[in-house]
Amino acid sequence: MSATHAMPSNQETIFTVDPVPLKYGHGALAEIGDDAKAMGMTRVALFTDRTVGGLECVATARKALQDAGMEVLLYDTVRVEPTDRSFAEAAAWAQDAGVDGFVSVGGGSVMDTAKAANLLSTWPDELMAYVNAPVGAAKPVPGPLKPHIACPTTSGTGSETTGVAIFDLPERQLKTGISNKLLKPRLAVVDPTATYSLPAGVVAATGFDVLTHAIESYTARPFNSREKPATPLARPPYQGANPWSDGGALEAIRLGGTYLERAALDPNDTEAHDFLTFAATLAGMSFGNAGVHIPHAMSYAVAGLNHEFRAKGYEREGGMVPHGISVVVNAPAAFRFTADACPDRHLTAAAALGADITDAAPDDAGEILATRLAEMMRKTGLPNGLTEIGYTDNDIPALVNSAWPQQRLLAQAPKPVTEDDLADLFRDAMRYW
Amino acid sequence: MSATHAMPSNQETIFTVDPVPLKYGHGALAEIGDDAKAMGMTRVALFTDRTVGGLECVATARKALQDAGMEVLLYDTVRVEPTDRSFAEAAAWAQDAGVDGFVSVGGGSVMDTAKAANLLSTWPDELMAYVNAPVGAAKPVPGPLKPHIACPTTSGTGSETTGVAIFDLPERQLKTGISNKLLKPRLAVVDPTATYSLPAGVVAATGFDVLTHAIESYTARPFNSREKPATPLARPPYQGANPWSDGGALEAIRLGGTYLERAALDPNDTEAHDFLTFAATLAGMSFGNAGVHIPHAMSYAVAGLNHEFRAKGYEREGGMVPHGISVVVNAPAAFRFTADACPDRHLTAAAALGADITDAAPDDAGEILATRLAEMMRKTGLPNGLTEIGYTDNDIPALVNSAWPQQRLLAQAPKPVTEDDLADLFRDAMRYW
Repeated sequence: MSATHAMPSNQETIFTVDPVPLKYGHGALAEIGDDAKAMGMTRVALFTDRTVGGLECVATARKALQDAGMEVLLYDTVRVEPTDRSFAEAAAWAQDAGVDGFVSVGGGSVMDTAKAANLLSTWPDELMAYVNAPVGAAKPVPGPLKPHIACPTTSGTGSETTGVAIFDLPERQLKTGISNKLLKPRLAVVDPTATYSLPAGVVAATGFDVLTHAIESYTARPFNSREKPATPLARPPYQGANPWSDGGALEAIRLGGTYLERAALDPNDTEAHDFLTFAATLAGMSFGNAGVHIPHAMSYAVAGLNHEFRAKGYEREGGMVPHGISVVVNAPAAFRFTADACPDRHLTAAAALGADITDAAPDDAGEILATRLAEMMRKTGLPNGLTEIGYTDNDIPALVNSAWPQQRLLAQAPKPVTEDDLADLFRDAMRYW
Repeated sequence: MSATHAMPSNQETIFTVDPVPLKYGHGALAEIGDDAKAMGMTRVALFTDRTVGGLECVATARKALQDAGMEVLLYDTVRVEPTDRSFAEAAAWAQDAGVDGFVSVGGGSVMDTAKAANLLSTWPDELMAYVNAPVGAAKPVPGPLKPHIACPTTSGTGSETTGVAIFDLPERQLKTGISNKLLKPRLAVVDPTATYSLPAGVVAATGFDVLTHAIESYTARPFNSREKPATPLARPPYQGANPWSDGGALEAIRLGGTYLERAALDPNDTEAHDFLTFAATLAGMSFGNAGVHIPHAMSYAVAGLNHEFRAKGYEREGGMVPHGISVVVNAPAAFRFTADACPDRHLTAAAALGADITDAAPDDAGEILATRLAEMMRKTGLPNGLTEIGYTDNDIPALVNSAWPQQRLLAQAPKPVTEDDLADLFRDAMRYW
């Protein structure tokens, strides 16, 4: 931080922290009636998807809301990996339903769809009006949304803690989103028992999303390398790495390094599921503050161009690349590339993941981190690079074209990324072992 | 956490996290006009004390508020180590002033006085009505207070992040306080440049408050060892150690171990001041969530019974034991006592402080942590135990009588504490080297 002191006066010197309040623990879902009541909800939209909708966690949430005197309207047709159309359908439903609050129980898709439906039913406009530039018009959210309690059922996206809602834009073969702090849920309710029945493939895919969130936050461009904004209000939501996000990110990397493999390989290891679920929320707090960079920018291309892949644990969803896989499959290549910008941070992350860094030189940092990540991927049955998802070198130009518009994320990398760099990165991500 | 799964069903399984939003960095004080405006303030009570009131930081805050169009009413007579009477005077002033918001610029005394004045002017009643039982009546705060922006100028109490206001009750020779989450400031604005001009004695005293906050949070009784509350609303503010408070506490211990001695010994080491200031806020977030225990319970007696001590850096305040000194002077003895309840945590804390724990056995944990703390105290000119503050073994019964009512804090220790234990603890705290 002291570096800022001697820096040119147009450099940013400030960061802000405004986490979503959290309730975590066994039985937390059974308390959400009290939480919803305290927020003044009386008529609640309960968002979930077809798969999660059949599980005990949604029944628990529904009963808790009803026992607290609330009228509950169920929307259980959230699309996994949502699209512009599925967001608009959910918003239209919410507007008709006339609710005064939202509760989402599910993965990132469910929580993000509830955020979008809340926004578009509270402040009606075209979805694309609010979408991040340059894909959308990045119109500011006019005011507060209705209260939203977000209850994740995967240990993954951390969406319960962020003001981001991501969706697929099939006609342009890319993923994009809305990012505004007013989209943040009013409360995150994290009950790890909801993750106990997840298929192993889902635990692994979502768990790697956690790890990459945390490592990307920790290696993101530092907050004090940005230019100072013209006014305090112009400070971006993704501020870059800072001492607050660093602490949470490193802790999430440590927890992921200790518990991800255990949780993915043993459905009965409840301790591992508990801590991995907590790591997901912690990583969400960190990346929602610091930002993510190259692996996520690349992931939108990897998921946007492929609707054939069948992932373990996601058999019901048809062809698609689950978010966590589309992210981590780029991660070893990306961290090999970024390591020379901040080798110490890459080594610290590798050590937190469990790699041996004794006698490691700064030049080894990228390879050590990439190797440890690839080892974890291999042990937990993840695809061996983009090749196993179905891509070949012939797809690289299309992948680059699809990832290149993610400038908001690429700008968070600790060093500049050109189109040629992206091509090299996709090539390096084709196969890891 | 998994332990909860096999635990009896009357055990707590849930923790909550609701941090005060934070703005941190060089120049943050100059932005508070925008922050106050965003909260709807128009007529602001600016709280400070006589010493800080003469410094640039208060001028900066005042100008920022005025430039944003606010009327500013200055209350610069906050008493350092406030009393029931000084709280009541500040409250009477605030009620007359008819303000719609509070800004506090100073140490814990200033921020706590602003909290109390905000409470007593917004919801008028006798101070003792709101004070923690059994000393006061522990009346619940009836509703939200006015917005309060808390701006610490010491790297110490962490009061900017907590719902606690502490004061001296001279007629009963003890310290007590009000603890309610509605007392939390709406925003913490932490500008580390405000700490650059602190006397070395103040840096050391307040810095040790940070360290003990963090170590007490990390070694506090675990959240899931409490009984489950009858209703979610009955969950106490001090919940016990949990994975969220653990991460922040350990990071604060690491930062304190690295930067406290540097900051206390070199006023020009701005990097050390910056990180120590951040550690203070991080430790505040952790202890405001997990709670503190024996060193703080003992400190209220140490400070409450002694109005003769003259601390370095506090020459203007007359005789009194500064809070940080009254706390850390008990810490080595307290951690020697608590170590057998959770030796691993005591060893981890010692390592984070910079102690060598290679080949350390669990039985060594308390001594290693105590020795490292005492070494840091000696190097930074802190008193060598209670003897140097002016206590003798003859004072032990009075110290025990004064500390024993702090049951709310003693109950947060990782093992039971009897009156005989307290006597032994004060005896052990008499001299460390």
